[in-house]
Amino acid sequence: MRTSIFFLATLCTISVQAQHIGHDNRVIFQYKADHATKVEINIGSHGIREEMSQDGNGLWTYQTDSLPSDLYTYEYLVDGIPAPDTKGLHKMRDIDNWFNYLIIPNGRGDYYAANAETAHGTIEQVWYTTQDGRERRMSVYLPASYGKSGRSYPVLYLLHGSGGDELAWIELGRATQIMDNLIARGEAEEMIVVMPNGNMWQDASPTYYDKKVKLSHRDVRLSGSFEMQFPDIVQYIETNYHTIPDKQHRAIAGLSMGGYHSMHISHHYPNLFDYVGLFSPAYCTTKYYKDQQLFPQGEHMPVIYQQVEVELKEQFGQGLALYWIAIGKDDFLYEENMLYRDLLEREGYVHEFHLTEGAHTWRNWREYLLMFVPRLFQ
Amino acid sequence: MRTSIFFLATLCTISVQAQHIGHDNRVIFQYKADHATKVEINIGSHGIREEMSQDGNGLWTYQTDSLPSDLYTYEYLVDGIPAPDTKGLHKMRDIDNWFNYLIIPNGRGDYYAANAETAHGTIEQVWYTTQDGRERRMSVYLPASYGKSGRSYPVLYLLHGSGGDELAWIELGRATQIMDNLIARGEAEEMIVVMPNGNMWQDASPTYYDKKVKLSHRDVRLSGSFEMQFPDIVQYIETNYHTIPDKQHRAIAGLSMGGYHSMHISHHYPNLFDYVGLFSPAYCTTKYYKDQQLFPQGEHMPVIYQQVEVELKEQFGQGLALYWIAIGKDDFLYEENMLYRDLLEREGYVHEFHLTEGAHTWRNWREYLLMFVPRLFQ
Repeated sequence: MRTSIFFLATLCTISVQAQHIGHDNRVIFQYKADHATKVEINIGSHGIREEMSQDGNGLWTYQTDSLPSDLYTYEYLVDGIPAPDTKGLHKMRDIDNWFNYLIIPNGRGDYYAANAETAHGTIEQVWYTTQDGRERRMSVYLPASYGKSGRSYPVLYLLHGSGGDELAWIELGRATQIMDNLIARGEAEEMIVVMPNGNMWQDASPTYYDKKVKLSHRDVRLSGSFEMQFPDIVQYIETNYHTIPDKQHRAIAGLSMGGYHSMHISHHYPNLFDYVGLFSPAYCTTKYYKDQQLFPQGEHMPVIYQQVEVELKEQFGQGLALYWIAIGKDDFLYEENMLYRDLLEREGYVHEFHLTEGAHTWRNWREYLLMFVPRLFQ
Repeated sequence: MRTSIFFLATLCTISVQAQHIGHDNRVIFQYKADHATKVEINIGSHGIREEMSQDGNGLWTYQTDSLPSDLYTYEYLVDGIPAPDTKGLHKMRDIDNWFNYLIIPNGRGDYYAANAETAHGTIEQVWYTTQDGRERRMSVYLPASYGKSGRSYPVLYLLHGSGGDELAWIELGRATQIMDNLIARGEAEEMIVVMPNGNMWQDASPTYYDKKVKLSHRDVRLSGSFEMQFPDIVQYIETNYHTIPDKQHRAIAGLSMGGYHSMHISHHYPNLFDYVGLFSPAYCTTKYYKDQQLFPQGEHMPVIYQQVEVELKEQFGQGLALYWIAIGKDDFLYEENMLYRDLLEREGYVHEFHLTEGAHTWRNWREYLLMFVPRLFQ
């Protein structure tokens, strides 16, 4: 490890790898690799992958077109091998891949950027105890005003997808920045955001520790245990934070697997949540299970999944403030979502369905959070 | 960005870069680079840099000797260019460099690893307001028992070095894991640990946002403003957390620049801290300034630095529970520390002075924290 040399350290190190955002929002990427035969820039968030050109001295360069305001993740590919911008201060992790990122300002990207003039919420990594005695970690966002008055707040429970963990919405999802910016602009109510770990074979992010809980893969993904035990999380939050502990002031939303969690938790506990957000959700309803042969003859399907249609009737019968779904046209879960929409329409269950561009990506999930949060607790 | 594919995602991706820890604590590093002429493994934390050997198919391998239990940071060097283990889940940032790391267990390394069977403290990233109205971020560690009873806790203020920020002790310093493990083993008292940002030209880590406060480099490093304003931080903590707000239950420690902060804060406010820890400290005492010509004739030296010797007399005159210094034999601040030790001995100021192996590195600072914390609040 390089030492932090007192008085000599600088944050402006000149690097062989670099990116520069011009005033016209064209980005120049540069990478120094003497012996490479091909260097590419891979802006994975936006499906841009281009060969860079060499100057004869091993310096590879690529300049993009003018890019719309957004958050872009990127890496270099040196003869096909991922080579991050090692000097890039800004990195985010997706499962076990680390990417550099940059934000193009003056538009949507501003919601994803921390702003020095904006009041900042607090992020906490706390541990709660489950009914069966496990200690599990979650992230909690508290709005800037929290604790400064006697106020209590509504709560959004925000769930990650398969492969994510309790850090995913903070790191990849920019939830802290999105909440701070929406609240500062007056576009959303102040609220607490709770981001638990939805993988029952983990107690915390694998960056925190590697030890896995000994449960079979099948058991944990499809056992319904995370959904069934969700009241442990709600109880911890309502015991330890200043919340408004009623249905009108609770929302649940999640992406992909977190969407299926949100859907099943909200129908199984129909008195808990008045707002439900499903971002590119999987459903794993009975029909889907049968199609996928996830429960071959003789195997026992968890009760929470067997009762979906009965419980949805109860959930919608009691009334909801908002049942909100978004899916990209190119998402591999598109068809499953159309089937679920058919079910909701057939039964007359009031909902909003947003068909967007794009696929099963964080680019979409950040946008969905931006769309969904302003609708809560109005 | 790669999408998190529902049901297909796995945390055990096979990678072209890899490391494997054998039972004998020999580590095998592998890196795939077809076109490289030389690939090295650079275990920077321990000064190990070795050429890897190629198998003829572009797979480079190096096996270490048996490594003592510790935390090791590493990167690959492909024809001299840093190439991280992109698939390595475990990374830490030092200024703007990201390194992979691994922990060799069954010894000191266990203190740096999160342990599933150990009660976990909470980490908070909170914002406090300075007297001149700035919002600045700090990290706060709360022990696992915090908030579960009516108890109040002593507080350690733990300061980073030049180039660090409010995340340095958490990311590089493993402070969370060290505190959890020391407390769980009964080797340290339960305490709150407060890690503020000591760079007055930043309000928060540059990974949070890049915007710098407009102050000149000289002004902020040597103005004494961080030290003078330190009571803002103490006041925020004692207002917002369950603390024991007296000198006997406050400690301050820091590395390098954080050592000079700790030294100056503790003599300038001699009633605040009963425990002082200086890890590889800079001092910037009058003599040092003159030697370095940091304050040429006519320039005004901040009052807090002019009064060092008078204020030290007051500080030691009032009595201290512990004044603890550690410095490595190979540290570039070694001589300055010997001068300071001479001053303390000449004046008869009771202190502990630990001369260790090694230099100005996080490897030493993690060890110093392990040595210092068990001495607090006994």
